[in-house]
Amino acid sequence: MAEFDPGPTGAFATHWDNRPSYSAVKARFRMNWGPIYYRGRLDGTARVIIIGQDPAADENVARRILVGAAGQRVQGFLRKLGLAKSYVMVNTFIYGLKGQIDPEAKQISGSAPIKTWRNQLLDMLKTGQTEAVIAFGAGAAQVVDLWPGASGLFVARPLHPSFRDDAQLRTNWNTWLPQLRTRVTPDPGVTPDSTPYAGATFKKSDLADIPARDLPFGVPKWMGTGDMAWRTAPTQIAWKSLAAEG
Amino acid sequence: MAEFDPGPTGAFATHWDNRPSYSAVKARFRMNWGPIYYRGRLDGTARVIIIGQDPAADENVARRILVGAAGQRVQGFLRKLGLAKSYVMVNTFIYGLKGQIDPEAKQISGSAPIKTWRNQLLDMLKTGQTEAVIAFGAGAAQVVDLWPGASGLFVARPLHPSFRDDAQLRTNWNTWLPQLRTRVTPDPGVTPDSTPYAGATFKKSDLADIPARDLPFGVPKWMGTGDMAWRTAPTQIAWKSLAAEG
Repeated sequence: MAEFDPGPTGAFATHWDNRPSYSAVKARFRMNWGPIYYRGRLDGTARVIIIGQDPAADENVARRILVGAAGQRVQGFLRKLGLAKSYVMVNTFIYGLKGQIDPEAKQISGSAPIKTWRNQLLDMLKTGQTEAVIAFGAGAAQVVDLWPGASGLFVARPLHPSFRDDAQLRTNWNTWLPQLRTRVTPDPGVTPDSTPYAGATFKKSDLADIPARDLPFGVPKWMGTGDMAWRTAPTQIAWKSLAAEG
Repeated sequence: MAEFDPGPTGAFATHWDNRPSYSAVKARFRMNWGPIYYRGRLDGTARVIIIGQDPAADENVARRILVGAAGQRVQGFLRKLGLAKSYVMVNTFIYGLKGQIDPEAKQISGSAPIKTWRNQLLDMLKTGQTEAVIAFGAGAAQVVDLWPGASGLFVARPLHPSFRDDAQLRTNWNTWLPQLRTRVTPDPGVTPDSTPYAGATFKKSDLADIPARDLPFGVPKWMGTGDMAWRTAPTQIAWKSLAAEG
């Protein structure tokens, strides 16, 4: 049977139902596309917790986080660790952020209802087999700083996959890979790709497709294999098919 | 916990994995958006089997059938029968059809691999508690004619919800409702809406929103409440948010 992610059950479903209201700060968020919560394993088999920033257009369509260009860079990073499935990803914010991680956004991220709810979520994701937390970017780094549960866990703080300078980003990621490789157990049957990022720009070979097991049932088979969506207006997204057959 | 449809399990997932190839007839279908299979109950609790024609842009986005304008008309029809959840819907074709149900399309629908696979699916949907089959439109009527398993079942053959003449469509649907009401048991706690369609055009009050339990996890809460998507090019869909909060 083709793999897919049926969505959360039990405590995660309940926790997401009980998400904090963003009403008071809605001017900074793309509320109209709704909240988007996670990608990956919720069944306790994740050994790495990944923290990103906020969903963009590809994620609005897929209803999972880190599936577009940034997500495919992260997936390539995980391949270098030998991780094919034993990870779970959540974001700093459940709605798309308008603008950058500026002081106001950080203040929102640290506000009591949002921080408390997110810390509860991270506590639920942390298990006895958590080997590392990878916080991509400044927003995610703050999330970890605000999370008491991070104490005792190895936390990597690489630059965000959408960082403006590719060369700097790749150099930065290369500094984190060896530290993570000593701590993260590869998935069974998966050989870590031990090559560092070479050259100044991301090539197709540096990216990895989003696995079908991370996506909802019945999505086109090209979902998560390229850049598929962008906003054409605040309330409209263009969604492009990436192959002749879906 | 908020309801959603996690997708198929077991025999249905396997059957959909084993879908027939449309390669030989791909000129007539929008293959790039992928196959879309169903909406509603797969757990044996459906008392009515609904057959539609093929998915359009709203269905491409939602990855469930009959969720757009036509689907909301069908949902309003089901409300008149007192059905809130005990139904399952499948289509004549799993890909979007280019053009109308013409002789060529009917020939494709009746070709051995497509017909045989679809009949197996319908056999899986038919249970001891199936009270009626509702085949909307000419494509679906042919599907039932080609399905040996329909023998012994009550089959309604109303016009398709996208029929070009609203007045004629509404009159036609009014002729089927009384026949179906005598056969279909309303869902517990649901009072059938016994009023016929009045006037020549569809009003908002004739439509019903697609229930969250029929849609995948985590979709915006306005999904299935209006017309949200349309094709802007063969490989591109515009997806519009229908409310300030999703």
